[in-house]
Amino acid sequence: MNIAIVGVGLIGGSIAIDAKELGFANHIIGVDKSGDNLDKAIRRKIIDEALSLPEAVAKSQIIVVTTPVDVLVHLLPKVLDLVTDQVVLEMGSSKVTVLSSIDNHRNRKQLVSLHPMAGTEHSGPEAALPRLFNNKTCVLVDVEKSGGAALEITRTFLDCLSMIPVEYTAQEHDLHAAYVSHISHISSFSLALTVLEKEKDEKRIFDLASGGFSSTVRLAKSSAKMWTPIFEQNRNNVLDVLDEHINSLAKFRTLLIKSDFEGIEKLIHQSNEIKRILG
Amino acid sequence: MNIAIVGVGLIGGSIAIDAKELGFANHIIGVDKSGDNLDKAIRRKIIDEALSLPEAVAKSQIIVVTTPVDVLVHLLPKVLDLVTDQVVLEMGSSKVTVLSSIDNHRNRKQLVSLHPMAGTEHSGPEAALPRLFNNKTCVLVDVEKSGGAALEITRTFLDCLSMIPVEYTAQEHDLHAAYVSHISHISSFSLALTVLEKEKDEKRIFDLASGGFSSTVRLAKSSAKMWTPIFEQNRNNVLDVLDEHINSLAKFRTLLIKSDFEGIEKLIHQSNEIKRILG
Repeated sequence: MNIAIVGVGLIGGSIAIDAKELGFANHIIGVDKSGDNLDKAIRRKIIDEALSLPEAVAKSQIIVVTTPVDVLVHLLPKVLDLVTDQVVLEMGSSKVTVLSSIDNHRNRKQLVSLHPMAGTEHSGPEAALPRLFNNKTCVLVDVEKSGGAALEITRTFLDCLSMIPVEYTAQEHDLHAAYVSHISHISSFSLALTVLEKEKDEKRIFDLASGGFSSTVRLAKSSAKMWTPIFEQNRNNVLDVLDEHINSLAKFRTLLIKSDFEGIEKLIHQSNEIKRILG
Repeated sequence: MNIAIVGVGLIGGSIAIDAKELGFANHIIGVDKSGDNLDKAIRRKIIDEALSLPEAVAKSQIIVVTTPVDVLVHLLPKVLDLVTDQVVLEMGSSKVTVLSSIDNHRNRKQLVSLHPMAGTEHSGPEAALPRLFNNKTCVLVDVEKSGGAALEITRTFLDCLSMIPVEYTAQEHDLHAAYVSHISHISSFSLALTVLEKEKDEKRIFDLASGGFSSTVRLAKSSAKMWTPIFEQNRNNVLDVLDEHINSLAKFRTLLIKSDFEGIEKLIHQSNEIKRILG
């Protein structure tokens, strides 16, 4: 089988590596507006050849679209215009806006909307990793809008990647993704800004950045080009959970101001509850 | 050499393992108010025997004190009362209050104040790990108040653990620890509270908790008993940086409310700066 990867970055590149190594595809075609990304991907043997979008679609059975979500809303209708019987997998991190761009498309049934809950703070084809998806959750969105054949081959592919499928509507996805994933990114970006603002002596940051700080601030290395359009498309849900985050920091602040350390201990105990859920 | 570990938890236990395995000590004595911790530490061969504080001090050349900082302020004067020519290493995460408790002690010169920038979100002797300190920074605090002999053996020990020593005053330590380490903990505790408050469906948290969320919220598993007294002793510095953290989240909020996504992209680019410092 031939698979086209449109947007050969961290996710697209990692999909390409696994599809080939796990025997799901024998030929990977890369499509990217960046010639540099395509060169890197060919040099690292992540893709077998680079083609234009129409050529890639014509030559593939599955087209995986993994661009930032602001590009997806323009690109997905074009990809669906080009397909005959191919399956299109889109992997955006926000769904309501992305999927509304192709809601009435005549080929809507050939598209399956996925959000693999895997990634790192790095981007570009050089960040692609084998087995990135192994044992991770993959959210399938609005499955009733996809055709049976498209869903079947998608499920076979996810099974091959050892992903665990769960089903959400687009609205559910965007709400819960804001509550868990999107707010983590804003929290981490803000922590980085805080430390950079207060700690003007970079050597001190380096000295004192134990594993704890590095872990909490890790997502602050994430790409602005990828995350800005996610916050734009999921603005209302993000604002809602962001207000709660400011509120929870303000609780610590109020207790500190009142020197109510019993209250702080109680608050920490409450937050420790996350241990039970995450293990 | 005999080493006594007072407070056989994550840090004390990890020190014990390395001191023995790297050949710095041949006998490790554990002191802990929890008989359960001592039993676990003996069963895991982290310590060779459990003694009372006076017995342990009398029998050791180095006494490592690794209790929570609220215990340190009462315990350190007692330990210094007991020493003759031994060296005492205290490893509290806040320093000004802790060190003021022994500032005028007749044996002050035998104490060296350290903060090894290493740890995990777990606690207790079962969390102890070999080589936890390898290649990590160790802050030496107010070194001019320690005697030459005490400092010399401390430096040899840190070298044996492969730690990188840096020197701070107690005031500098508390300020910069608040700016980098303490705020990361509050940020993570608050993120956990936020997600637990907004996301009432635990299965959704589990589904959507990719590596990103888990990493950002990891410190929220940290011990309330350890962290509450750190925030108490370093209250003013923590409040100062906490205000800035609330301010940085509020910047995101204002830009989201105004739908100023160029501004958000700029803010993310600023926070990406942390990449350059942390690598």
